[in-house]
Amino acid sequence: MGVNMRSSSIRFGIAGSGVYLPKRVVPSTELDVLTGGAPGTVQSRFRIDKRHWANDEETSSFMAASAAQAALDEAGWAADSVDVIIAGCGVMEQPIPGTAPLVQRRLGIGDSGIPAFDINATCLSFLMAFDRVMAGFALGEWTRALIVSADVASAALDFGDLESSVIFGDGAAAFALSADGPHERIAHRFRTFGDSSDVCRLEAGGTRLRPHDNLDEFLARSKFQMDGPGVFRATAKRFPAFLDALLEQADINGSDISTIIPHQASATALEHLKRAVPDGHTKTVDIFAHIGNQIATSLPHAWHVARQQQRIKAGEHGLLIGTSAGVSLGGAVIRW
Amino acid sequence: MGVNMRSSSIRFGIAGSGVYLPKRVVPSTELDVLTGGAPGTVQSRFRIDKRHWANDEETSSFMAASAAQAALDEAGWAADSVDVIIAGCGVMEQPIPGTAPLVQRRLGIGDSGIPAFDINATCLSFLMAFDRVMAGFALGEWTRALIVSADVASAALDFGDLESSVIFGDGAAAFALSADGPHERIAHRFRTFGDSSDVCRLEAGGTRLRPHDNLDEFLARSKFQMDGPGVFRATAKRFPAFLDALLEQADINGSDISTIIPHQASATALEHLKRAVPDGHTKTVDIFAHIGNQIATSLPHAWHVARQQQRIKAGEHGLLIGTSAGVSLGGAVIRW
Repeated sequence: MGVNMRSSSIRFGIAGSGVYLPKRVVPSTELDVLTGGAPGTVQSRFRIDKRHWANDEETSSFMAASAAQAALDEAGWAADSVDVIIAGCGVMEQPIPGTAPLVQRRLGIGDSGIPAFDINATCLSFLMAFDRVMAGFALGEWTRALIVSADVASAALDFGDLESSVIFGDGAAAFALSADGPHERIAHRFRTFGDSSDVCRLEAGGTRLRPHDNLDEFLARSKFQMDGPGVFRATAKRFPAFLDALLEQADINGSDISTIIPHQASATALEHLKRAVPDGHTKTVDIFAHIGNQIATSLPHAWHVARQQQRIKAGEHGLLIGTSAGVSLGGAVIRW
Repeated sequence: MGVNMRSSSIRFGIAGSGVYLPKRVVPSTELDVLTGGAPGTVQSRFRIDKRHWANDEETSSFMAASAAQAALDEAGWAADSVDVIIAGCGVMEQPIPGTAPLVQRRLGIGDSGIPAFDINATCLSFLMAFDRVMAGFALGEWTRALIVSADVASAALDFGDLESSVIFGDGAAAFALSADGPHERIAHRFRTFGDSSDVCRLEAGGTRLRPHDNLDEFLARSKFQMDGPGVFRATAKRFPAFLDALLEQADINGSDISTIIPHQASATALEHLKRAVPDGHTKTVDIFAHIGNQIATSLPHAWHVARQQQRIKAGEHGLLIGTSAGVSLGGAVIRW
């Protein structure tokens, strides 16, 4: 083909978006009791008031389908009118099949044939799915895409390590995107540093550790482990250059960004981000204190909130940005 | 952008490919003993002589990195010269992070920043990753891509059900692809039917079933389950129309296909495929008897063998095709 569109922008529209939050609200005081801390410890140390945790019925596909239906309702689209369904989750509901086919079934379109598959980049799965949808739009492969993110972080938390546990919440978010629309994705950047793949990990659940071979080992590794200082070292030192390169790709300055829609990694990570962009404190969509870190769901949830708060203003620039296990740094610049 | 390239072909080259097979060969006679059948039962019933099973060191990322290095060596590419690494596996090595960052690290380029993420469509993960690489090539986003597939099916087999266990083997395959080259991907088709998501499933390992909440339930669901007749019903009835539509997209007839490179689902599935295309028996790359069903690795493994057997001939047409849990049907037509 030979058409080089590397620097080209890609147009899209947001026809609808939706979120699902589990019914059960878990205040930080409840986690103080669970973790044996003095009342107020979790709130003061991690600057989080509450998060939502899923019950047994609120599986990833259940929550994702609910968020997707809300997005489709806003769009006024029949579920079977979309060209593709991509699930961009942190951890799948079950290993086989992926979450996307399960969501397709729950939407009542399980006989539709609509392509459904998963993209995984841990906390940046939605961003990567969005990027691949943009490619599909640019090539005319798809005109309507449904991206869902859903995570049940509470399924694998080790409360013996406060930092790796109390900041996480469950939930889902979905976007119904169209190939025609007022917005332009003008830059995308994604960088992975596998040397740091151990700083955020959940080891049990794939093919390497097997409950039938060594149950004790399996159970010991079946909780999420995070080396906070390691994450900081792996991402913070690289973040300024990453952001500069992304803005350069977009041919704008940090001051040109009006809305920052980040992954909600932690209060500390959000604080660093706010300081990295001029007027970052007012520009950043920060839902961490009430929602926590929802893994891959955080970024689209924040984007949904930005829409609700009418922070998507024609002609202005938005920044989608975050870090993930891998570790990866990812971002996109959008001209609304 | 507005450029509609739906019917356009996308050029690419195969710079290199590689496979990794675990050291341990498991003859079907060994599985006769394991499953309590008379000698020759597994071979005669499933038409499989042997398969390879991974040992503890032969993890998905280990095998994938080995296959990837072979592909890079053939290409003459430094590992850090690729623009993207996509892992298209059936089941991940571990839930967090994905397999692609682990492979990046094993290739010695864990500090490179090269984007690494996973695409999951169970047995068709490689095909879907290939499709998204084609989009990246067409848009000029990437000029060199590395796709790896690796699966350790033997990690989760229930030998109480012969059909769901004895046909599976482990291994990895990798392709180093370039945006310029002699080949053209002239059609891609992918259809998902989530109503049949229960006919092939591995339920334990994601966020829905939790070993700490209900260990008995977790262990009971931690083996792959396949409803063979259900799979057949869900895929076989749809296959003829699917193939017709794919060939129509490519604007060719079945007789124009010279090489069929299929997922190696089972001897029965391969036999049905061979009958669906004129001279299918001579055109089909069939490695099932010695390799078995390697989940997502089967299709790129067969493609690698097709290259070794010099069945990739300029100007002729190749068909990549298969079915997967989901269920999905997927295929691509390539003009070599």
